[in-house]
Amino acid sequence: MTDYMPWHDDEPLAEESLPLETSSPDWPPPGSPDIVIARAVTPRPITEVAARLGIAPSDLLPYGHTKAKLPHAFTDDLAERPRGKLVLVTSITPTPAGEGKTTATVGLGDGLNRLGHRAAICLREPSLGPCFGMKGGAAGGGRSQVIPMEDINLHFTGDFHAITSAHNLLAALIDNHLHWGNELNLDPERITWKRAMDMNDRALRHLTVGQGGQSVPRSDGFDITAASEIMAILCLAHDLDDLQRRLGEIVVARTRDGAPVLARDLKADGAMAALLRQALAPNLVQTLEHNPAFVHGGPFANIAHGCNSVMATRSALALADVVVTEAGFGADLGAEKFFNIKCRQAGLAPNAVVVVATLRALKMHGGVDKEALDQPDPQAVRRGTANLARHVENIRSFGVPLVVAVNQYDQDSDEEHAVLREACEAMGVEMTVSSHWRDGSAGSEALAERVAALLDAPTTAPTLTYADETSLVDKVRSIATRLYGAADISLEDRARRQLEEYEALGYGHLPVCIAKTQYSFAADPELRGLVEGHVLPIREAELAAGAGFVVILCGAIMRMPGMPRHPASDGMRLDEAGEIEGLS
Amino acid sequence: MTDYMPWHDDEPLAEESLPLETSSPDWPPPGSPDIVIARAVTPRPITEVAARLGIAPSDLLPYGHTKAKLPHAFTDDLAERPRGKLVLVTSITPTPAGEGKTTATVGLGDGLNRLGHRAAICLREPSLGPCFGMKGGAAGGGRSQVIPMEDINLHFTGDFHAITSAHNLLAALIDNHLHWGNELNLDPERITWKRAMDMNDRALRHLTVGQGGQSVPRSDGFDITAASEIMAILCLAHDLDDLQRRLGEIVVARTRDGAPVLARDLKADGAMAALLRQALAPNLVQTLEHNPAFVHGGPFANIAHGCNSVMATRSALALADVVVTEAGFGADLGAEKFFNIKCRQAGLAPNAVVVVATLRALKMHGGVDKEALDQPDPQAVRRGTANLARHVENIRSFGVPLVVAVNQYDQDSDEEHAVLREACEAMGVEMTVSSHWRDGSAGSEALAERVAALLDAPTTAPTLTYADETSLVDKVRSIATRLYGAADISLEDRARRQLEEYEALGYGHLPVCIAKTQYSFAADPELRGLVEGHVLPIREAELAAGAGFVVILCGAIMRMPGMPRHPASDGMRLDEAGEIEGLS
Repeated sequence: MTDYMPWHDDEPLAEESLPLETSSPDWPPPGSPDIVIARAVTPRPITEVAARLGIAPSDLLPYGHTKAKLPHAFTDDLAERPRGKLVLVTSITPTPAGEGKTTATVGLGDGLNRLGHRAAICLREPSLGPCFGMKGGAAGGGRSQVIPMEDINLHFTGDFHAITSAHNLLAALIDNHLHWGNELNLDPERITWKRAMDMNDRALRHLTVGQGGQSVPRSDGFDITAASEIMAILCLAHDLDDLQRRLGEIVVARTRDGAPVLARDLKADGAMAALLRQALAPNLVQTLEHNPAFVHGGPFANIAHGCNSVMATRSALALADVVVTEAGFGADLGAEKFFNIKCRQAGLAPNAVVVVATLRALKMHGGVDKEALDQPDPQAVRRGTANLARHVENIRSFGVPLVVAVNQYDQDSDEEHAVLREACEAMGVEMTVSSHWRDGSAGSEALAERVAALLDAPTTAPTLTYADETSLVDKVRSIATRLYGAADISLEDRARRQLEEYEALGYGHLPVCIAKTQYSFAADPELRGLVEGHVLPIREAELAAGAGFVVILCGAIMRMPGMPRHPASDGMRLDEAGEIEGLS
Repeated sequence: MTDYMPWHDDEPLAEESLPLETSSPDWPPPGSPDIVIARAVTPRPITEVAARLGIAPSDLLPYGHTKAKLPHAFTDDLAERPRGKLVLVTSITPTPAGEGKTTATVGLGDGLNRLGHRAAICLREPSLGPCFGMKGGAAGGGRSQVIPMEDINLHFTGDFHAITSAHNLLAALIDNHLHWGNELNLDPERITWKRAMDMNDRALRHLTVGQGGQSVPRSDGFDITAASEIMAILCLAHDLDDLQRRLGEIVVARTRDGAPVLARDLKADGAMAALLRQALAPNLVQTLEHNPAFVHGGPFANIAHGCNSVMATRSALALADVVVTEAGFGADLGAEKFFNIKCRQAGLAPNAVVVVATLRALKMHGGVDKEALDQPDPQAVRRGTANLARHVENIRSFGVPLVVAVNQYDQDSDEEHAVLREACEAMGVEMTVSSHWRDGSAGSEALAERVAALLDAPTTAPTLTYADETSLVDKVRSIATRLYGAADISLEDRARRQLEEYEALGYGHLPVCIAKTQYSFAADPELRGLVEGHVLPIREAELAAGAGFVVILCGAIMRMPGMPRHPASDGMRLDEAGEIEGLS
């Protein structure tokens, strides 16, 4: 049996907390596929991992031997406990070269544990869609992964499926209401609630449902589950009660008189809450170095708010001394929403921010083609730092100290590092090269030391970009001009009418959640590097009253991805031993 | 720690195996809602339940503390072990009055355990669709339930969701193939693979996908997940290897030249198998009396083959002395398919059959309206026994001994029981009244004794209704004329052409899976009681090459249910303690 530690015990960690070499003497060579590296490690029972956070086996809901949920009875009690320090990992504007934000989050967490801090990480759950489409899995990479990676990438503890079910139950209840006489007088042309599926399936983007004479025909479409308002609700709800309340607040349609129709009006909120009851409980797994990792909630940061769940973050803060979490895509999207939506709603106060960059991505921002990234090009790095500088400035606007972490690649040259270091010095920010991808926590020790040094300062509330009472239009404008470097915003008539309606209905106090391309400060994904003085075009808005924000759609952003000509699923297979091949 | 018994130990069961009164002194009164009764029982840890089957904790994959899967490494070994006795529970033609087949299965299993037999039951998993629609949950009723009923009814271990995902991945890959140039020359008009959702949603029955100019528009529709061929595959696969092979055999479309296109041609089989890997592992839970219950696979018996999984049945047979399982709806549908599809494919040989009836249902078959069922009406019971007699005769045709079990209701009169007993004597079959719904195993002891007495006879292979080499048309005809009492079948041209095509393609050896209304021996749900000399109309056929059968659609049978005006979901809610209310 495992002895578990009392909470916030200040005794030094047991020897087994520094497990790398002892637990896995036969590491495959660096550059091996992620799944090969992941399988070289024998996972510890999840009860042992939980014990390091002071969680007793009876306070865990196991899902197999290496995954667990923290039941509501346990997390409800955590709300009373004091808080650890919170570190946010974000990045420069992403490029096709890849930045490694999840990998950096895992590496930093392992590095902090290696230094003797009781650290936990908080990640988002991967979506099945990209896993079979282009991107592959999303459980970190190299020696900085969370395991069991096959389970985490496929179904995991069923949270996405619960969200899909709740989403589609509400949709079915809407059409069922139309079928049985439409007592609430819904306008079939103004039903805003679509359907959801956790799949990349472009054929479902636009469709006509209710054909064949048995139902009311109308235009509809599927969004990917990660883009569902219910995903956002799950990620922002404080507890079961708050979950059920938020579900009831969802606006699904307008009546023929223009009045909003809520999920509560359709009596859908209770059944949806029942479907989501278990999904709201945070998931606990481990890193390759057996450190605790909460993986819970998975909204995309380009089309949603892109942060893991408040439930998981708060639970981790009650159980660990340091919590490292990520926000999706670049700091303009993920970190902005982390502060202005998640911290605002959950009262979180981050103590430090890590901005992840790679020389390769900086070179792309400096104008280099993807094919030429292996060549040293210090001038391109220098040009690319303009992108980094804007993100650094933006993070500073929130009043939180930061460091720049450079994910090391084998091809990186000393000269390029020197150029970047010089640029960081000019910005007045420290830069650390980190090789956790190749070396695990041995490679992230320096980064962990740098971050730990920032955590001694007292915790202060972040400076948010706008106040609740600012108008919706001005909220968007303040983000665009202060953080994106835009000269102004332009609103299509439709968007303007929508924002006016939301304010008239009493939703003007909500924060905004900007849906735009992750590849640029502008709405055009081709504009890399630093973009300035542009006008951000607002096409449309959407009320997410349950999640508690207004989505602002900029340019052509899609909420149902498609698959490439040769999807990742082509290469997957069960081998003769019944193990999964081809998942990366 | 639990001591677990070595397998097939013949020592008497420990005292704790007879737990009723001791474990639950505070039973709510008979007639209390199922969930109230279920919550009166404190579930045993699933490790204890498993120990009674000789399963070590390390051979279980826990899902919470009261559910588990048997991992493949464990079930693969079971294939070598000797077999217990198998009992099938089926029923007369169902009526809106309800028969209680699942309840009888649970009650009989508990009764056998009470008598000292090491018995396990094998049920199907409930579908979410009916749970929110009309029917409510499907985990038994009264004191004959499986628990945890909330979990079993909602998501359970995620098997349905895995099937939905695998089904829709294949659909997405088909449309993606069209999008990227249609190299395999699929005829978009002859794509037979639809999409799936575990929801009652009539608006999704018929739709047009691929609209909006980003994809290839075509007619499509959603079936409920329980009707998916992948559900049938999961229920019939012997192991992971067989699963992946069957998935590859699925025929999804025809080329413009009329050649079949398989899932394997689209490279979908491996990724689907990866998605279904865990779902194929049988689920173990417990009855209210803490006896082991396998709940795995959930096809509907009117539109699919309606039996729980071969994996679960075989595992149970290797671990228990007696295994009680159910087949869906009446014996004409569920039991017929149990023998001609499941036993044929899996080499199972049932030792006894229980035909469940209620006086109320017999009265409906005897012409009484639902509203008048509370009144005693011995003559109506007598008329209704004609329906029972046909089912008894049908079961006899398979060469397996049987008993009739009458689920007792409070309103039942002695005179009605006497009429039924007399009719059973005339048929030469024993009849037992059983009150497990009200009394648990104390009420099913007599039934269990009767069944146990049949199990001493040596196991013999059942007599199937037709041979593999019989033509597809003659297979259908033999079921219709020998089991349904029809004079003949009639085939619409379309169905005839389809069956000819399947035989030409080499699928003529497959068994047939008849999709028809569960409410009648005919294709018309209004024709209760005994129907004879009718002509069974065959509208259409469908090849399920992965499942290994040909579906025969009779009359108007739908594979996507709708919800009623006031769906069951209306009454569901989380209460202040966060517990689910309104699930029944």
